[in-house]
Amino acid sequence: MILILKTGATDEQIAHVIARVKDLGMQAHPSRGTYRTIIGIIGDETKLREEPLRAIPGVEEVVPVLPPYKLASLEAHPDPSVIDVSGVKVGGGNLAMIAGPCSVEDEDRMYRIAEQVRAAGANIFRGGAFKPRTSPYAFQGLGVAGLKLLREVGDRYGMPVVTEVTDVRCVDVVAEYADMIQIGARNMQNFVLLTEVGRTQRPVLLKRGMSATVTDLLMSAEYVLSQGNSNVVLCERGVKGFDPATRNLFDVAAVPLVHSLSHLPIIVDPSHATGRPDLIPSCAMAGIAAGADGVHIEVHDCPEVAKSDGPQALLPAQYEELMVQLKSLAELLGKTVSPLPEAFA
Amino acid sequence: MILILKTGATDEQIAHVIARVKDLGMQAHPSRGTYRTIIGIIGDETKLREEPLRAIPGVEEVVPVLPPYKLASLEAHPDPSVIDVSGVKVGGGNLAMIAGPCSVEDEDRMYRIAEQVRAAGANIFRGGAFKPRTSPYAFQGLGVAGLKLLREVGDRYGMPVVTEVTDVRCVDVVAEYADMIQIGARNMQNFVLLTEVGRTQRPVLLKRGMSATVTDLLMSAEYVLSQGNSNVVLCERGVKGFDPATRNLFDVAAVPLVHSLSHLPIIVDPSHATGRPDLIPSCAMAGIAAGADGVHIEVHDCPEVAKSDGPQALLPAQYEELMVQLKSLAELLGKTVSPLPEAFA
Amino acid sequence: MILILKTGATDEQIAHVIARVKDLGMQAHPSRGTYRTIIGIIGDETKLREEPLRAIPGVEEVVPVLPPYKLASLEAHPDPSVIDVSGVKVGGGNLAMIAGPCSVEDEDRMYRIAEQVRAAGANIFRGGAFKPRTSPYAFQGLGVAGLKLLREVGDRYGMPVVTEVTDVRCVDVVAEYADMIQIGARNMQNFVLLTEVGRTQRPVLLKRGMSATVTDLLMSAEYVLSQGNSNVVLCERGVKGFDPATRNLFDVAAVPLVHSLSHLPIIVDPSHATGRPDLIPSCAMAGIAAGADGVHIEVHDCPEVAKSDGPQALLPAQYEELMVQLKSLAELLGKTVSPLPEAFA
Amino acid sequence: MILILKTGATDEQIAHVIARVKDLGMQAHPSRGTYRTIIGIIGDETKLREEPLRAIPGVEEVVPVLPPYKLASLEAHPDPSVIDVSGVKVGGGNLAMIAGPCSVEDEDRMYRIAEQVRAAGANIFRGGAFKPRTSPYAFQGLGVAGLKLLREVGDRYGMPVVTEVTDVRCVDVVAEYADMIQIGARNMQNFVLLTEVGRTQRPVLLKRGMSATVTDLLMSAEYVLSQGNSNVVLCERGVKGFDPATRNLFDVAAVPLVHSLSHLPIIVDPSHATGRPDLIPSCAMAGIAAGADGVHIEVHDCPEVAKSDGPQALLPAQYEELMVQLKSLAELLGKTVSPLPEAFA
Repeated sequence: MILILKTGATDEQIAHVIARVKDLGMQAHPSRGTYRTIIGIIGDETKLREEPLRAIPGVEEVVPVLPPYKLASLEAHPDPSVIDVSGVKVGGGNLAMIAGPCSVEDEDRMYRIAEQVRAAGANIFRGGAFKPRTSPYAFQGLGVAGLKLLREVGDRYGMPVVTEVTDVRCVDVVAEYADMIQIGARNMQNFVLLTEVGRTQRPVLLKRGMSATVTDLLMSAEYVLSQGNSNVVLCERGVKGFDPATRNLFDVAAVPLVHSLSHLPIIVDPSHATGRPDLIPSCAMAGIAAGADGVHIEVHDCPEVAKSDGPQALLPAQYEELMVQLKSLAELLGKTVSPLPEAFA
Repeated sequence: MILILKTGATDEQIAHVIARVKDLGMQAHPSRGTYRTIIGIIGDETKLREEPLRAIPGVEEVVPVLPPYKLASLEAHPDPSVIDVSGVKVGGGNLAMIAGPCSVEDEDRMYRIAEQVRAAGANIFRGGAFKPRTSPYAFQGLGVAGLKLLREVGDRYGMPVVTEVTDVRCVDVVAEYADMIQIGARNMQNFVLLTEVGRTQRPVLLKRGMSATVTDLLMSAEYVLSQGNSNVVLCERGVKGFDPATRNLFDVAAVPLVHSLSHLPIIVDPSHATGRPDLIPSCAMAGIAAGADGVHIEVHDCPEVAKSDGPQALLPAQYEELMVQLKSLAELLGKTVSPLPEAFA
Repeated sequence: MILILKTGATDEQIAHVIARVKDLGMQAHPSRGTYRTIIGIIGDETKLREEPLRAIPGVEEVVPVLPPYKLASLEAHPDPSVIDVSGVKVGGGNLAMIAGPCSVEDEDRMYRIAEQVRAAGANIFRGGAFKPRTSPYAFQGLGVAGLKLLREVGDRYGMPVVTEVTDVRCVDVVAEYADMIQIGARNMQNFVLLTEVGRTQRPVLLKRGMSATVTDLLMSAEYVLSQGNSNVVLCERGVKGFDPATRNLFDVAAVPLVHSLSHLPIIVDPSHATGRPDLIPSCAMAGIAAGADGVHIEVHDCPEVAKSDGPQALLPAQYEELMVQLKSLAELLGKTVSPLPEAFA
Repeated sequence: MILILKTGATDEQIAHVIARVKDLGMQAHPSRGTYRTIIGIIGDETKLREEPLRAIPGVEEVVPVLPPYKLASLEAHPDPSVIDVSGVKVGGGNLAMIAGPCSVEDEDRMYRIAEQVRAAGANIFRGGAFKPRTSPYAFQGLGVAGLKLLREVGDRYGMPVVTEVTDVRCVDVVAEYADMIQIGARNMQNFVLLTEVGRTQRPVLLKRGMSATVTDLLMSAEYVLSQGNSNVVLCERGVKGFDPATRNLFDVAAVPLVHSLSHLPIIVDPSHATGRPDLIPSCAMAGIAAGADGVHIEVHDCPEVAKSDGPQALLPAQYEELMVQLKSLAELLGKTVSPLPEAFA
């Protein structure tokens, strides 16, 4: 780390800072400029914490030299990770195409949608059994019954399934029924939940929080990795923006940014990013063109009766049309939509 | 609600929308303009959900006429609520002055800080036993041992204590030891946790999330209220901003805005809002001048050794000086710093 | 427009609102709900202004039904506009590939860069002669000498040229030398400048301001259009975001959003959007995949000596490589990089 | 400055960086850590520019050690500046109370409002003659006729007047009629206009742009100061936020932040910051409590007929009531609302 001292820091303050750094087992290299003194700290930065350094009198700023995550970094793993979701590969040129309704709803509809998105080329089926809703009066999901139905649909059509977990007490049951566990944007910094999910070996779909920087996102991935679960797929789903025309602000640059910092795959979710079906196809294309390792899209065959998030779903026919375009684009870029696992294909 | 249809919506689409509204048990009042048709919906808006309406073909926009929260609204409770935190009143002219270290640390330090902030006029003591940290490698708190120590310190000095809960499995133990349960900013939309806390009768200090609108904050309060716990105190602690000069962006206007919409008290937390001790006193004064029902400030007697968040803490002497100013300002505004509960005072 | 009245608006207030609407020559259609009254206004909305309506006692909210721009809207011109920049077509499937250094610098370098970007497929050459710099001590551009040099380079290589105007007093001289006039992000709401540029017939490259909504951007275009200049090309170049990892936040969804609202072409500028050469290619690809009508990229052959914005420029070889990819993508999407004007090609 | 090199920067790259720094006449102090090399640069930082340094291959980050503004900094002028606006002092404990309608409108109304705000304690009268409007179809102001009327009203009531300039060609005429020249938020980075205003000696009211950091604001002030005009008063008027409940996000912490960095006075404008009359008084109080050197408020006696921005104006009686509170608060803080100039008082 580098410490920049305040203009006018006294000799006594400088000596105190140096002594503190040495106490922590590091070496301090001061250089005095015309106005300010800066102190380079040499040693194992991972043992240092910014906060106490910043609190030493006379310190103006603390500049970390290394990123705060380790296991998630490219330094730790220079090649792109390829995550295996019950036979479907994600990352390193293999694209995940996740599709399905926002919530697990009635049985007939689930089977019908699964059949349609599978035919269009989706390779992971999604559906929410536990829904984090901003209103306590809104539909909260079918719970375990929803998990079971999701599993049955996945088995029937030979597609791995992904669903969100919102409660640490449900991690085991979700891990039992689902092939991949989703951590939603609102829980991206629910560190207790991240830790529990990290104790399973299920692949995790970790969505970026609405006000999370890319560093924050990688730190949350680090929670999962540090528990021993290295199967993390990140997801850019829009951050908080100021233009009410879209639900969120789709930060497509986060895709190449993550790839420049981490080995973990990152997919995009244009459904939540925009909240508008008319913008979803363009943003899905943009995501793949930017290098994303997949696309997550909500599909519903009658959005006006959907139990949640209807207005951001594509109709099955729209999804099919988009998938034709996405596949051409993938081919152009030398990537492959991962095939379904052989046992079922 | 009001539905604004797209330019060029067909007669068939308009008829379909009206039919859908009637199916939901409401009346539809269409009025056709030169370019667009709008449809007013008359009936119990609380039974309607925006999303499926927005998904009906031909609908451009859905404009709610009533706020989505009920129990938190001024309509439900036109007078300001006064929350009783084990004898310390918050709201309706009674100010909460919450102070203490970020984390519960060693025993001597805790007693010393508690004594100092109590002497300065603080009426609720704070300290974190379970810390939500962005890094899995950072100090995570003392856990139950920290809760017990916090309780002892509170008992010794006759101050109610507040501490954060981050895990649904710990709600009971936190409710056993603490007088007030804090929900941190990162868990403001952890609806599972809100629901569990709502099942206790402990006062709740609900911090605003970094990308939460005031409506979002009130909806999270509604989760707690809807479980039967009406003892909620809100806290403005800064939202995500674009200027790196401060840790967050202190949204002081949220204070009068909440008061114009809700009966719940709202306090301010300039420690987290700014992350800079030199800005804390001015922002604390601003909060009270804007009508806040209290101030939450981190105080530590040696920030450079604090186990978390040192650089945003005031020294006890700085806190004492600030409290002199805050008390004068409160007096000018006709408000009172709530006295400590009699049993101890 | 629709007026939503406050809960508890009195009969007198309602009558006053209705009278005011009638004074303005419109009809008022009130409908009284259980809690609130809403009033639909029928008539020429373009004659109404939101602000005075919002100021009438008893009015809670004013909801416009039509967008505030007219000439820029799809209603006014349902087909995509194709702008002709001295022979290079932009829009409707024709892509503008604008490239060149941030500032016009020394002659040799300008000729060299122009030759290189032209060979790679660029069809409009850029360079700043008047630079809006945040520091008064930074290089402010070569002024008219820079304009002349830019023109010479354009003539030599048969490429139309675009340059920024920052001063109303320079609009004529810029219009004399340049084929296209750029309005920079910081001047997007410099209405005086927009008006003067609207009085020329030169194509305008209008960059989105850092905190401008898409509606704001279209309103600024409306300023130019309303003066009789219909040759406006919009440019998404990143908005203010909270993550310091990138210079701005590239809002790629603005591309399809503009296309859903307006007939004007929109290009993307990943140089300013990201400020990082390593992210530029991915974001350029994302922009074209999202439907953008072109890409604006800064190219410099020795960024470390550039007089401005060096770190966001591509090297000529990097640009060439990117253009190969962009052309394949354009072909896949059925679009064409516009050829250079015949006279020169 | 400090240069942080990329992990894996080669010896050749390091040597090149050091050579470049020496070419610029500075000394380079490298220190090699386990993973990365950092290079401290000693010399006159004001001669260095970040951008070319950032563009040198192998450089990851450039960390400035000194702020980029000089004349505006506390280092240049450690005591608070007191600006004299035709006899009304602003700064250093002297409060400016600026009030008046958004636009200069009809004569009777102007005299009436001026009389009312003067009686309430306002000491500078405001009114816009040139209005920057987002719509080209909205009222654009009375122009020079408005300036003359504003001057007459000011003379009649003995109040200095402030009005906005939006066009460099009008700087002279505005400087002729007004005592203080306002640069609006949308022109905060119109560097041409800042330069021209800097060439007059008229006090300048410089409003913060909607996406400007405090550093950006001080850099814009530096433009004015660097031309020889040291009479700059800053104004916090809300930045772009994500909550549509208020027009902007009132950044009250910018007040103490500016005071920690600069000698220039800073006032607050709760009218534009909130856009809601019901929130203005609380935010005005918050601003003064945070240390602001004055308050700018729009006052109109019939907002529903105002030619611009009616809904954010206070009625004269509301303003009078607020001024009573503001004066008590000023007294508590040991500050004074500046008296009107003697010649008129």
